[in-house]
Amino acid sequence: MPTLPLKLSQRWHYAKEQAISFLMQQAVENPQVISLAAGLVDAGSLPVAETQHACQALLSNDARARQALQYGTTAGAERLREQVLKLFAAQEGKDPEALGLSREQIVLTTGSQQMLSLACEVLLDPGDICLISGPTYFVFCGNLDGVGAEPVVIPADEHGMNTDRLEAALQILEQAGQLPRVKLIYSVSYYDNPSGISLADDRRKRIVELAKQYSKYHRICVLEDAAYRELRYDGPVHPSIWGHDAERAYVIYTQTFSKSFSPGIRVGFAILPKDLVKPVCDRKGNEDFGSSNFNQHLLATVLESGEYRAHVEQVCAAYRAKRDAMLAAADEFFSEIPGVSWVRPHGGLYVWMSLPERVPTGFRSDLFRTAVAEGVMYVPGELSYAGPKESVPKHQMRLSYGVQSPEGIREGMRRLANAVRKTLGTAPAS
Amino acid sequence: MPTLPLKLSQRWHYAKEQAISFLMQQAVENPQVISLAAGLVDAGSLPVAETQHACQALLSNDARARQALQYGTTAGAERLREQVLKLFAAQEGKDPEALGLSREQIVLTTGSQQMLSLACEVLLDPGDICLISGPTYFVFCGNLDGVGAEPVVIPADEHGMNTDRLEAALQILEQAGQLPRVKLIYSVSYYDNPSGISLADDRRKRIVELAKQYSKYHRICVLEDAAYRELRYDGPVHPSIWGHDAERAYVIYTQTFSKSFSPGIRVGFAILPKDLVKPVCDRKGNEDFGSSNFNQHLLATVLESGEYRAHVEQVCAAYRAKRDAMLAAADEFFSEIPGVSWVRPHGGLYVWMSLPERVPTGFRSDLFRTAVAEGVMYVPGELSYAGPKESVPKHQMRLSYGVQSPEGIREGMRRLANAVRKTLGTAPAS
Repeated sequence: MPTLPLKLSQRWHYAKEQAISFLMQQAVENPQVISLAAGLVDAGSLPVAETQHACQALLSNDARARQALQYGTTAGAERLREQVLKLFAAQEGKDPEALGLSREQIVLTTGSQQMLSLACEVLLDPGDICLISGPTYFVFCGNLDGVGAEPVVIPADEHGMNTDRLEAALQILEQAGQLPRVKLIYSVSYYDNPSGISLADDRRKRIVELAKQYSKYHRICVLEDAAYRELRYDGPVHPSIWGHDAERAYVIYTQTFSKSFSPGIRVGFAILPKDLVKPVCDRKGNEDFGSSNFNQHLLATVLESGEYRAHVEQVCAAYRAKRDAMLAAADEFFSEIPGVSWVRPHGGLYVWMSLPERVPTGFRSDLFRTAVAEGVMYVPGELSYAGPKESVPKHQMRLSYGVQSPEGIREGMRRLANAVRKTLGTAPAS
Repeated sequence: MPTLPLKLSQRWHYAKEQAISFLMQQAVENPQVISLAAGLVDAGSLPVAETQHACQALLSNDARARQALQYGTTAGAERLREQVLKLFAAQEGKDPEALGLSREQIVLTTGSQQMLSLACEVLLDPGDICLISGPTYFVFCGNLDGVGAEPVVIPADEHGMNTDRLEAALQILEQAGQLPRVKLIYSVSYYDNPSGISLADDRRKRIVELAKQYSKYHRICVLEDAAYRELRYDGPVHPSIWGHDAERAYVIYTQTFSKSFSPGIRVGFAILPKDLVKPVCDRKGNEDFGSSNFNQHLLATVLESGEYRAHVEQVCAAYRAKRDAMLAAADEFFSEIPGVSWVRPHGGLYVWMSLPERVPTGFRSDLFRTAVAEGVMYVPGELSYAGPKESVPKHQMRLSYGVQSPEGIREGMRRLANAVRKTLGTAPAS
């Protein structure tokens, strides 16, 4: 008797077509390729010494050690939530007491990715609408798919999500009787993945105003993804979208220590409206009983010692040099290719590049194949757009400078420019 | 303008009534109470020295350290999956090569709880049926609630889930045309939470046979929860349910290092049918991108060094003494109370006690209130039964010996016996 197939859940089917696995497979099958695709972090600046110090300090205190090795709570270790409150206040340029925020509203997660997933699980039913930027973080589109929610794409420009277009979309949805389906507005507010752009201050304010104004059937929340906030190299300092939410009721704020410290430690945090804390913890409890308590104590030790702040400065110095290398290489190799433009980011990990519209960049495109043959890989821009595939821009690329050395970045950009020239039919005879 | 309420998802509403938060609140509000309720582990045997050694070894090797602090893969670190394969083979009494299992079928999770959640997410749609024991692990009932699945309760006896009753239930479901809804059979196969009973060998075999026999519309899987497997103090050694699945296609096996090593490190593992690996990893990737890579490398280091095996022996010695203390106290304080009986477990963390049927044990019962007043707390047995509240036995208690010292256990049992006598109206005049 043959073994019958599994019958997987509807929700699994919703989310099955995620492109990330193809990219990872390509990377595995082409190890000689310089990847400007991978979202990994700079290996050289990983905090080996800081983690050693923290492990020693934590484990040489017997009571602390036993506390860290025992079960924690679903919301996370008090010690780290206290430190997160201080860190967040410093980012906002305020005293912790002036934030209008209690420690109970801070929930610690397995990276900030877990909070993006939890927010979708707790707030969104199949058919509910989430307003997102075009382009936006593509894994979040997978989270929306996973709960059967519908993304409505708001175009972004050089200042981030266009809030006039957001308002127009909300108006249209209301006129069409669809406002009851609208639950969430998602924004990567600092050094966006993939565009590298930080949302302008007036737009931060406006997003909160619009969420409030259109909360006519129930509250519409703003999910602020500040994953890259601490990777600032220059340019203006922006207070968060959360800071514009005077009621502290509309914005779900998420941040992670994966980029600023270590992705392997896998600790993120969320700041939640008070009435969302229990729903999120209920759901998280059912999923995993809480993230690693040991890692939370480890990170609290790093923050308490002051080594964290110094480490973030080191990390930013390393990435600043890499960003500069990528922008210099872009100038060197791309500025004479007609119709190519790119964003100059003030932080984060990505340069967003646009080619002439007649040059598609997708996995099945001539350019992608040519690039792999030249020995370089990128993330096709179309992956970062939700919505119907036909209407999505297909001529963009996300280029990451996180992993490669400045030399590797330059060589990768040189190869990529060759691939673009070849694809354009204007490559010089070799 | 008042802030409008949130509108939470249907799935959150499915799962909102989980009793665990009431228990935790009681524990916080009554710190003087001896808790025989908490599922925490013995603090004295937590692996402080072993974790120190592993941190030192891992972080003093620069390449290894950087690998551990970087992102890992969703399925988990190769190093630990290799060690898990060896550990699992040793448990099964076989060579790793003879298992018919590849490393790719091993997925590392945030405790085994995450795999229980992932199995439900990937396999179960609202209205689907999972067959479970009565009683069973109550958090898993929350996972079933969370996906809108329907538990069908199969009574258990002193050998675990009654497989004749399981067969009868499957027959009835088939006759009623409900077999297409049946997706999963769940079993805590070693030292069950809450009953302390290990499933008899012939029943392990029979469960797999029945899963195969009734896989008429799609494959019916068996979710084997072996969380307590390594906490064996005496009695027979059982091979897993998984071992009876010759096709390696029906059983989803889960185990955790939380009980045998440290819950704060939060690492569990699953062994999956080949065609379930991608669906589970897709879902896990969307939830968290993989559990802490650092902790997986840490635990791999502990397993490679041989310190793990020695530690498990220490842990078992500590719990054996505690189990003996609880059973001795049960004999001392309960044997003369008419109508009280209890299970004598060979491993795990729980003694399951039954009172006369006229003595309910729930949160609102006289007994629970009297027990808290006497200074002791337990988990009401009814929490461990799914299905309609009316039909659930209400006169049982789960007593944990994990946290308290042997002296604390004896004192807790003395107080509990007092509470039972008082509630029975037979307490001696004080």
